[in-house]
Amino acid sequence: MAKDKSPRRPRAETPKGFRDYFGADVTERRDMLARISEVYERYGFDPLETSAVETVEALGKFLPDVDRPNEGVFGWQEADDGDKGDWLALRYDLTAPLARVAAQYRNDLPSPYRRYAMGPVWRNEKPGPGRFRQFYQCDADTVGAPSVAADAEICAMLADALEAVGIGRGDYVVKVNNRKVLNGVMEVAGVLDPSDPSKFEAERGIVLRAIDKLDRLGPDGVRALLGAGRKDESGDFTKGAGLGAEQSEVVMGFMAAMRPTGAETIERLRTLVGMSVMGGEGVCELQEITTLLAAQGYGPDRIVIDPSVVRGLGYYTGPVFEAELTFEILDEKGRKRSFGSVAGGGRYDDLVKRFTGQSVPATGVSIGVDRLLAALRAKGRAGAKAAGPVVVTVMDRDRMAEYMGMVAELRQAGIRAEMYLGNPKNFGNQLKYADKRKSPIAVIQGGDEAAKGTVVLKDLVLGAKIAEHASLEEWKDRPAQVEVPRTDLVAAVLRMLGK
Amino acid sequence: MAKDKSPRRPRAETPKGFRDYFGADVTERRDMLARISEVYERYGFDPLETSAVETVEALGKFLPDVDRPNEGVFGWQEADDGDKGDWLALRYDLTAPLARVAAQYRNDLPSPYRRYAMGPVWRNEKPGPGRFRQFYQCDADTVGAPSVAADAEICAMLADALEAVGIGRGDYVVKVNNRKVLNGVMEVAGVLDPSDPSKFEAERGIVLRAIDKLDRLGPDGVRALLGAGRKDESGDFTKGAGLGAEQSEVVMGFMAAMRPTGAETIERLRTLVGMSVMGGEGVCELQEITTLLAAQGYGPDRIVIDPSVVRGLGYYTGPVFEAELTFEILDEKGRKRSFGSVAGGGRYDDLVKRFTGQSVPATGVSIGVDRLLAALRAKGRAGAKAAGPVVVTVMDRDRMAEYMGMVAELRQAGIRAEMYLGNPKNFGNQLKYADKRKSPIAVIQGGDEAAKGTVVLKDLVLGAKIAEHASLEEWKDRPAQVEVPRTDLVAAVLRMLGK
Repeated sequence: MAKDKSPRRPRAETPKGFRDYFGADVTERRDMLARISEVYERYGFDPLETSAVETVEALGKFLPDVDRPNEGVFGWQEADDGDKGDWLALRYDLTAPLARVAAQYRNDLPSPYRRYAMGPVWRNEKPGPGRFRQFYQCDADTVGAPSVAADAEICAMLADALEAVGIGRGDYVVKVNNRKVLNGVMEVAGVLDPSDPSKFEAERGIVLRAIDKLDRLGPDGVRALLGAGRKDESGDFTKGAGLGAEQSEVVMGFMAAMRPTGAETIERLRTLVGMSVMGGEGVCELQEITTLLAAQGYGPDRIVIDPSVVRGLGYYTGPVFEAELTFEILDEKGRKRSFGSVAGGGRYDDLVKRFTGQSVPATGVSIGVDRLLAALRAKGRAGAKAAGPVVVTVMDRDRMAEYMGMVAELRQAGIRAEMYLGNPKNFGNQLKYADKRKSPIAVIQGGDEAAKGTVVLKDLVLGAKIAEHASLEEWKDRPAQVEVPRTDLVAAVLRMLGK
Repeated sequence: MAKDKSPRRPRAETPKGFRDYFGADVTERRDMLARISEVYERYGFDPLETSAVETVEALGKFLPDVDRPNEGVFGWQEADDGDKGDWLALRYDLTAPLARVAAQYRNDLPSPYRRYAMGPVWRNEKPGPGRFRQFYQCDADTVGAPSVAADAEICAMLADALEAVGIGRGDYVVKVNNRKVLNGVMEVAGVLDPSDPSKFEAERGIVLRAIDKLDRLGPDGVRALLGAGRKDESGDFTKGAGLGAEQSEVVMGFMAAMRPTGAETIERLRTLVGMSVMGGEGVCELQEITTLLAAQGYGPDRIVIDPSVVRGLGYYTGPVFEAELTFEILDEKGRKRSFGSVAGGGRYDDLVKRFTGQSVPATGVSIGVDRLLAALRAKGRAGAKAAGPVVVTVMDRDRMAEYMGMVAELRQAGIRAEMYLGNPKNFGNQLKYADKRKSPIAVIQGGDEAAKGTVVLKDLVLGAKIAEHASLEEWKDRPAQVEVPRTDLVAAVLRMLGK
């Protein structure tokens, strides 16, 4: 090692854009994902856990999201003789590894293959507020099923998963649309030529992304992007698709095609796609999805046809879906707005083809883990706050074994409990520690109590309430502290915990 | 992008040394870790999940395991103006990130801080059979507790965790020793000078690693390493510590100091450390740990003082512990041997000092997740094999909605179920699919059954048994197939599943 002329201590810092999760942040997510897994497994989906690291070759060099072409991956080259080592990278989503697995194990996996995956993914992008470079995804996909029954199943499963984690019926809606219908509308608008699909490809990309921004930009903003382009508040200009007024109105009509019932919406779409073969096929698929869902009892209170949903990603080829939470929250400016999207997906038929040359039909959904968890917290459904432990304080250093014995009894009764393990000299520090641990009860046994064979239980929850409402009569009669026989320790703690 | 003259398809391969986990491999580990978490939480430990990525500066450039100094990390440099970007790397264990967290949040965390962490770690080392570059660790540590009560607690918790996952009492033992006692013995042997600890440092390192290899090399092998050195079977020579015969016997006596009871072992150790102050301190600590554990009901049937345990890592400073599974398995050559170590840990007091300059006492344990899971499988305790789904077959493409309705009813009754989503034309393929899915029951409804309002349930488990034991009378009377009214579908499936 080279000698360091100015030795200094390393910085104790998370790398930029990364974060640590403590306590309830970990357990609440874990519990939510466990509930989702149960639903996925009931639907016959099997878990798959691929490694965090893939070859860059297998991942593909670029993210599919055309809106963020500069997003990269964290990559490095394997050490090897010369400069021949493979380039490796952290996965940026769970779909690319699935495509690799589906190709690699194609002779061993059941076909169709239903799998779910949950875990972190990494994006080498500029971190920003609330924008992290490692985050969780939770995906379920069916590979090898050409039938839209697979898409319908994913929509039903998504609804069940949302209810399983605590989003009540009526607080969410799964919206379904079909890219083929959109393509039919593009054909009618004259930006898709079925005999030469490569024509107008750039224009269609702009149309797609414009529709995807309807929520944010409103109809006028979308209209601008369909036409010449749009200048945003900062003065930046985004080039439009260059559609004429009449063409634009065809597309705008598509987005506004939703009607009070699914049947009416489908009729309206059938009119809009006119003579387009692909458009007609898309409408039939939407019809079939509706029928299949109705047969399973999933009506428009849970799943609706909504032509305004297109999903930004370029790779979808058929049905697309999005789960939106409809209850209201207050935004950062105190205005009410509905919570918005927490999951999305669709059919993509060409991901495996990169590896094998064969097109394999696939459809899937990805739940935004952080957003869904935020929603559960907003609704007070993220589970009871993790209970702090009962803290057994140390009054007398010579009787540590006795205190440890108390802790062991409590733990054996299933009660979360700790002995104070810091320096016991300052008793105030022990109570401060209990407070920081959100401890419900402090157990205290000094020499006097030991001689009498008793322990004192301090009700810290009640104590805090009394401190807060000192004037209220109701608290005055309730003692925040009781002395009980040592032999009654566990029973008395259970009583105080209300168990 | 440069034009590729010979375009070829990417290889669908896991990178070298990495692997994919399917189905039960994922769920069995998940269930095991969930049981361990429950125990850790009952003991007051809080979960912590740090990101996979750390700065190389925070990680430290080298692994603490001196036996494998060439083990590296997967690292890369952040893109930045010039060449100033931070070097980042994947964590190689869960202790280095804990040290960083303990320093970074030292004003916010409770002190002592009990935390547990579970997750993958990465090692950039040459992959080999059964040796992977990504694997799970499961750690629990207490930071900021100088008292050996913290060490005793970890030992008790480790015993509880092993029992919670299904290792019965008697099938494991937690062995406890103390590095201070070893240091006392080194002092007696003349390879530690308390007034100048830097003397003989290399020799002590060799002694430590020699003792750690007792299981593998036997007493003679260790003796050789304590002396001039040892030539192994391949002819490679490992330099020894250069101890004289008398010095070596002092060390060998330490390893053989175990007596039938803990009290006798402790007495023997007290004799061996002679006048060494540090050695005497270590013996007292072992005594205190025994007392604290006894007070919690943990006797020598679960936790024993065993002087042969030293743990290879250089950074331990006090008590060290190791959990060994004592039941026998057959090794690759068909010989019986005891399963061996599945967890280990100890006290390390200087990891946080790197960041803050202040020494912070810490102690912890790491469970070898893959080894423990292998042990559970060897004992048949890794949980029932994940049940395959009931498969509803598709006899008639026009009645997909009806089949999906059946699946939905089964799922709503909590039964794992699927409709066949592949091409339904070849019915044999559907049964092959059910077989690959390890499906217990296939549900069949052709046109005739539909007209009658019935379904046929094919018992695939029984069917397989009949095929296997076709001659046995007992199977002949039991029909592997029943026809039931459509309205009885769920009840009949539950009956057939034995629920």
